[in-house]
Amino acid sequence: MKRGKLIVVSAPSGCGKGTILGQVMKDGRYYYSVSATTRRPREGEQDGVHYRFLERAEFERLVAEGAFLEHAEFCGNCYGTLTAPIESHLAQGQHVILEIEVQGAMQIRSQRPDAVFVFIAPPSLETLRERLTNRGTETAEVIAERVAQAERELALMPQYDYCVVNDVLEDAVADFRAIVRAEELKTEQR
Amino acid sequence: MKRGKLIVVSAPSGCGKGTILGQVMKDGRYYYSVSATTRRPREGEQDGVHYRFLERAEFERLVAEGAFLEHAEFCGNCYGTLTAPIESHLAQGQHVILEIEVQGAMQIRSQRPDAVFVFIAPPSLETLRERLTNRGTETAEVIAERVAQAERELALMPQYDYCVVNDVLEDAVADFRAIVRAEELKTEQR
Repeated sequence: MKRGKLIVVSAPSGCGKGTILGQVMKDGRYYYSVSATTRRPREGEQDGVHYRFLERAEFERLVAEGAFLEHAEFCGNCYGTLTAPIESHLAQGQHVILEIEVQGAMQIRSQRPDAVFVFIAPPSLETLRERLTNRGTETAEVIAERVAQAERELALMPQYDYCVVNDVLEDAVADFRAIVRAEELKTEQR
Repeated sequence: MKRGKLIVVSAPSGCGKGTILGQVMKDGRYYYSVSATTRRPREGEQDGVHYRFLERAEFERLVAEGAFLEHAEFCGNCYGTLTAPIESHLAQGQHVILEIEVQGAMQIRSQRPDAVFVFIAPPSLETLRERLTNRGTETAEVIAERVAQAERELALMPQYDYCVVNDVLEDAVADFRAIVRAEELKTEQR
């Protein structure tokens, strides 16, 4: 059986990554990699669905065993991607989608030449600012910080294999599917 | 303006390459590279459409000038691909389709790391044999030689970037389009 592809996806906040991946996941042919974390579950979050919730001692033991493809600490909590479930699905011929921020993606890039890196970008920073403003859920200060963060992340886009611009959702979903199909059609040897 | 992609396409005889490319050309976004040749035009063949017909002295002068991306002699006639028209269309942002046999493709591969190499394959040699037999236009001997030739060409498939299996025509055309779209979405730098 042909191995699945590990597809690493990053996007600045507000680029519609979740919506695109939600559509793509409906194709029923992907395994969505669930991150492990030491933070406490929030209301409604289920273990194994939103995160795999681990005690810190367990997390650290797994780090020591080299069980993580990447891991990092944010705001006092550890987050990481376990290698074993990914490998198991790839070996079964299933593609694995790994949604991760740019620093995590760069950690994986150096280890996994077999992975495909997809960056989802807004049509422009101005469009991103408008979208975040129109949501009406964030303060001007938070929006400004998000846009500045997006600009820093966009600078890393050339490190990815592909860039999908999310202007019209259906086009972005079609582009994502075209990338996966083309990757399936690649000859193995070259 | 973003440069177009040079798309080099090879396929064993009888794989439906002409039909697939005929469908793809209807998209109206490709320039189809026309080969130059020293052979005489056959009935109905137009200069600049089927081939660019050249006198041998002119062909040899162009070879000496380095005007060909690749060239070869078959059965006493010279055939070749002129670089200038390809470059001109690529510079205008248009994709160029270059249909060529495997030896010509291998010549181009070493010179053009920017080109995309697509191999069109039959579902199996047995299917190819059946298709050629069902056409009813070739002798058993010619069919056997074609299948043997296809087998030799298939051995070079790993040298191509992508392989499209022409089982169902519509799927093969969709696969070709997915490859081109994915190539368009590639980040330039990596």
